Amino acid sequence: MNDQTNNVERVTIIGSGPAGWTAAIYAARASLNPIVYEGLPKQTPSIQLPGGQLMLTTEVENYPGFPEGVTGPDMMAQFKKQAQRFDTRVVMQDIVRCDFSKRPFELHTADNKIVRSHAVIIATGASANWMGLENEMRFAQSGGGVSACAVCDGALPVFRDQPLAVVGGGDTAMEETAYLTKFASKVYVIHRRDELRASKVMQQRVLDNPKVEMVWDSVVSDVLGDDKITAVQLKNVKTNELSDLPVKGLFIAIGHTPNTQFLTDSGLQFDDTGYLKLKEGFRTLTNIDGVFAAGDVSDSTYRQAITAAGMGCKAAIDAERWLADQGID
Amino acid sequence: MNDQTNNVERVTIIGSGPAGWTAAIYAARASLNPIVYEGLPKQTPSIQLPGGQLMLTTEVENYPGFPEGVTGPDMMAQFKKQAQRFDTRVVMQDIVRCDFSKRPFELHTADNKIVRSHAVIIATGASANWMGLENEMRFAQSGGGVSACAVCDGALPVFRDQPLAVVGGGDTAMEETAYLTKFASKVYVIHRRDELRASKVMQQRVLDNPKVEMVWDSVVSDVLGDDKITAVQLKNVKTNELSDLPVKGLFIAIGHTPNTQFLTDSGLQFDDTGYLKLKEGFRTLTNIDGVFAAGDVSDSTYRQAITAAGMGCKAAIDAERWLADQGID
Repeated sequence: MNDQTNNVERVTIIGSGPAGWTAAIYAARASLNPIVYEGLPKQTPSIQLPGGQLMLTTEVENYPGFPEGVTGPDMMAQFKKQAQRFDTRVVMQDIVRCDFSKRPFELHTADNKIVRSHAVIIATGASANWMGLENEMRFAQSGGGVSACAVCDGALPVFRDQPLAVVGGGDTAMEETAYLTKFASKVYVIHRRDELRASKVMQQRVLDNPKVEMVWDSVVSDVLGDDKITAVQLKNVKTNELSDLPVKGLFIAIGHTPNTQFLTDSGLQFDDTGYLKLKEGFRTLTNIDGVFAAGDVSDSTYRQAITAAGMGCKAAIDAERWLADQGID
Repeated sequence: MNDQTNNVERVTIIGSGPAGWTAAIYAARASLNPIVYEGLPKQTPSIQLPGGQLMLTTEVENYPGFPEGVTGPDMMAQFKKQAQRFDTRVVMQDIVRCDFSKRPFELHTADNKIVRSHAVIIATGASANWMGLENEMRFAQSGGGVSACAVCDGALPVFRDQPLAVVGGGDTAMEETAYLTKFASKVYVIHRRDELRASKVMQQRVLDNPKVEMVWDSVVSDVLGDDKITAVQLKNVKTNELSDLPVKGLFIAIGHTPNTQFLTDSGLQFDDTGYLKLKEGFRTLTNIDGVFAAGDVSDSTYRQAITAAGMGCKAAIDAERWLADQGID
């Protein structure tokens, strides 16, 4: 307890999605008196809200424990409530820079304060890349049929036996397309070039599927419909010709960007795709002792609420044991 | 779908704890039509119930999503209901032997049937080792203050500022002791020998803690109390002397045994402590292509419901992608 008198946190959690709140629940129950910087809402470069990507998700059917489903915002409210029940402190503020060269670490907030902390858990997630269309965001936020995650949303009844479209040409776009063919009557893959970036194996699997139709050299120029999407407006990038393609769902698969901008020059290592690198996949240790990572910020593979929450728990347990090893209690 | 006509499952899930049901939810939503062998209830060599170790847990406060807490059996009922909502088939039967040398794999049930399956997810969990006392199990099952998991149960209000006892002398026992000192007024460590098996560092941390008192050369010969534990009866193994030690909680930390008996001679690799070995910690692949592992059966480190559920999700996604790679849909 003596550290608190010098205003040094035992563990600071940056981020407030499933990973961050789960880390908080576990750290709080281990009497680490954690503090969560849940972040400020922002619109650029991409929409980020305290609570993370689930704040843009209307219906969550695959998080175990909610057999009737739950909305993303409701679920995050429950997580936060649970963390606060065990005396987690929550600050709605951004951490904009981390100095891990000092011990205790120094975290700089957007309002020019410095948080000193022995251990840090980074759980800032990733943001889906969007095309940047006004109607795209309107439909995505209202459950109108636009999504950035086929595994999350593809199985919803509204998409069954309906024509759907995927935007993208990489491995993830192909995986999402293959996944959606299980449900859809037809899946159009809209790609701005005339060849795919995806691996040959992935390409072939998708191109061989009779439900898949490629729409080459095209971008989505608008998303049409009132409450629900009814069609996408396509623009051929070679001819500039516009056309409407009727679909009941649009899946944006043009990548994610991990939210690591505040970690530039922090000394933390990233993998080839910019995600935080773990020392060893099973645990949550980064290359800096006392800094742990959990959730989508260090996971470009699974990206599910339940996997992020599992990592958040691991990070709190790893941090607790690390603090004990340091003799900090 | 054509495989179903030949009675070959796409994916068979063995086990029905958080990992098994989460794998089922994800596999079902990926239209893999999974089947879960949830196991038969048994009393020996240790208590095993469909639903796993949570069936012996009264209050779960740390699974994110239940801010008011939930009982272990209720939580598992919710998980199962969610899996069944998406058309998971459930069989209350044991798999007693696996032949992974054949493709599709052949799984043998306790009632002498053979299940053929392209992919298998093993999620049979681990069982806490108990001392084998009748009253120990009575208190453990009724929430009477006997537990095999300090991280799960130690923060419950009933244990705050109370004298507690830990049985065991290994690293886990020391970790649980250190954890409990955050809450307890005193922690007795009961160990049958006069020295600990735990690493020196772990030993020192615990022995230096003023809240810890060692009870050497002793075993618990009975657990005393009506609804709630009031004391343990100790037997000194050198003098055979009996004595009562008043405590409000008893934490059994004499190890866990992963439930892998049915995998003997299966060709699967195990780690040094008998847990299923993953090819790579972040994912759920085992050394046999098409066999995946999730939850406590392959995790001797974290052993939480939320981490097991996260692995169950990963296993289903890994299996789905593997099946797609094989051209099995």
